[in-house]
Amino acid sequence: MDQTTAYAPTDRARVRRRPQRAHYDEATVHAVLDAGVMAHVGYVLDGQPYVTPTAYWREGRRLYWHGSAMSRMLDAVDGAPVCVTVSFLDGFIVGRSGFVHSLNYRSVMAFGRARRVEGIAERRAALDRFIDRLYAGRPLKLRPATDEEVAATAMVVMDIEEASAKIRQTGVADLPADTGWAAWCGVFPVETRIGAALPEPAMGAGGAPTLDLAPYREGARLDEALAQAARSAQARGQGAPVST
Amino acid sequence: MDQTTAYAPTDRARVRRRPQRAHYDEATVHAVLDAGVMAHVGYVLDGQPYVTPTAYWREGRRLYWHGSAMSRMLDAVDGAPVCVTVSFLDGFIVGRSGFVHSLNYRSVMAFGRARRVEGIAERRAALDRFIDRLYAGRPLKLRPATDEEVAATAMVVMDIEEASAKIRQTGVADLPADTGWAAWCGVFPVETRIGAALPEPAMGAGGAPTLDLAPYREGARLDEALAQAARSAQARGQGAPVST
Repeated sequence: MDQTTAYAPTDRARVRRRPQRAHYDEATVHAVLDAGVMAHVGYVLDGQPYVTPTAYWREGRRLYWHGSAMSRMLDAVDGAPVCVTVSFLDGFIVGRSGFVHSLNYRSVMAFGRARRVEGIAERRAALDRFIDRLYAGRPLKLRPATDEEVAATAMVVMDIEEASAKIRQTGVADLPADTGWAAWCGVFPVETRIGAALPEPAMGAGGAPTLDLAPYREGARLDEALAQAARSAQARGQGAPVST
Repeated sequence: MDQTTAYAPTDRARVRRRPQRAHYDEATVHAVLDAGVMAHVGYVLDGQPYVTPTAYWREGRRLYWHGSAMSRMLDAVDGAPVCVTVSFLDGFIVGRSGFVHSLNYRSVMAFGRARRVEGIAERRAALDRFIDRLYAGRPLKLRPATDEEVAATAMVVMDIEEASAKIRQTGVADLPADTGWAAWCGVFPVETRIGAALPEPAMGAGGAPTLDLAPYREGARLDEALAQAARSAQARGQGAPVST
C-alpha cells in the first residue's frame, strides 16, 4: 500500500473485529468523510467521555468543525486527543437466525489532536470555504460576515493522524442449514434523500433554488449530493493537501 | 417538571449552547432514542477517546448494545463511564449570510456506566427482545440461537443516569437587514427512508416480506418505522421500566 495515500493503522486505529471490512487507504477514508456533513466528535473532560454531533468538512488530511465561541466542546478539544466518527446506515439485514441479523453501514473513525483556528481572517476564510464546499459559489451571493459574527464563531482543525474505514455492504450470510426456516430473508436498503425545498416566502425567497444549491434537488441522495459537491470544491482548488 | 419522568440535568448533561433547544423530559429523550437504531458510543481507553457506531435499543431507562465477544469497545466500556449519542440530520438551512446557515437536527446525549450482561440465558433473551423490538414476532420464526452463538455475543447495558435532547426544527433565522441580498433562502429537508426490499432468491426467500417486517415497507421513513416498532414492542410488554 502506498504510504503516501494511506492512513497507516497503529493499535489505535486498527480494526480488530471483521478486519476484512477495514480500509485504511486515503481514497476510501475520504470517500466516506466527503459523503457526510454530520460527525460525532468524541473527547474527554475530567475522565468523562462526551460525543457531540456537529457539522464538519474535510480539506486534504484535515477535518474542520466550528460552533459558538462559548461551546464547551470546542474548548475541551483544543489541544486534546479527539476521535471524529462519521457513519451511514445503509441497510437492515434479516436472516433465518438472530445471529445473522445485521446492518449494512459505512463508517470512518479519524484520530488526531484538534487545535483552535486563531485569527478573524483565517476563520472567515475557512467559513467561506465550508459554505462553498456545500454550495458552490454561494459565498459571493451572501452578505459578508461581520467581524462580530466571526469573533462569535470558534473553529477547530484536526490533522488526521490515523483513520480507518469500516464498511459492510453485503447480503444475508445465512447458514445453509437454516434454509428450511420459513422466514423471509433479505436486505432492506436505507437511503437518505433531500425532500422538497421549503423557501421562506416572507423573505422574498420565491422561485427555484439557485445554481449553488443544485446538488440538493428533491429526491437526490444526500451522500451523493455531498460527495459531488466535495469533488466540485476540490476541482475549484479546495481540499488539496495542505502544507503544514 | 415531574422528577419521575425527567432526566435531571447536572453539569455533565446540561445543554449550555442554545438552551432553548434543550429537553430533559423522558418523553422527548425517549422519542429520539426510539427513532434510531445506530448510536455513537463514546468511551475512553488510556486517555484516548473513541467513538464507535453501533446498533442499540432502549428498554425503560436502559440502553443495550452488543457485539462480538472479542470487541475492544465492549471490553473498554464495561464498568466505565460512557456517552451514548443518537442523532438525526433533518435539514439544511440556507440564508442570506453565512452566519445563519445551519442544520436542523434531533439528538440525545445519554450518560451512564455500562456493564456486561452476564449469563447465556440473559443474553439470549435480550437478543430476542432486540429482534422483536425491530421485527415484531420474528424471534418465533427464526432458528433459535445456539449456545455457541450467544457465547460469541457480548452485550452491555447502561442505566441512563442523565440525558439531554437537543432539537432544532425551524426555518431560516435571517436578519431583516439582509432581505435585500438576492440569494435564495429556505430549508432543504433531509429524510431517511426504506428502499425496495432485496430478497435473497438463492435462499428460497421469494415473495413479499412477512408481517414482522411490515414497518420497513418501501418509502417508509426510517425514524417513523422504528418509533412505531418501539411503540408496538412496548405495547407487548417490552420496554417497561425495569426494576433494578
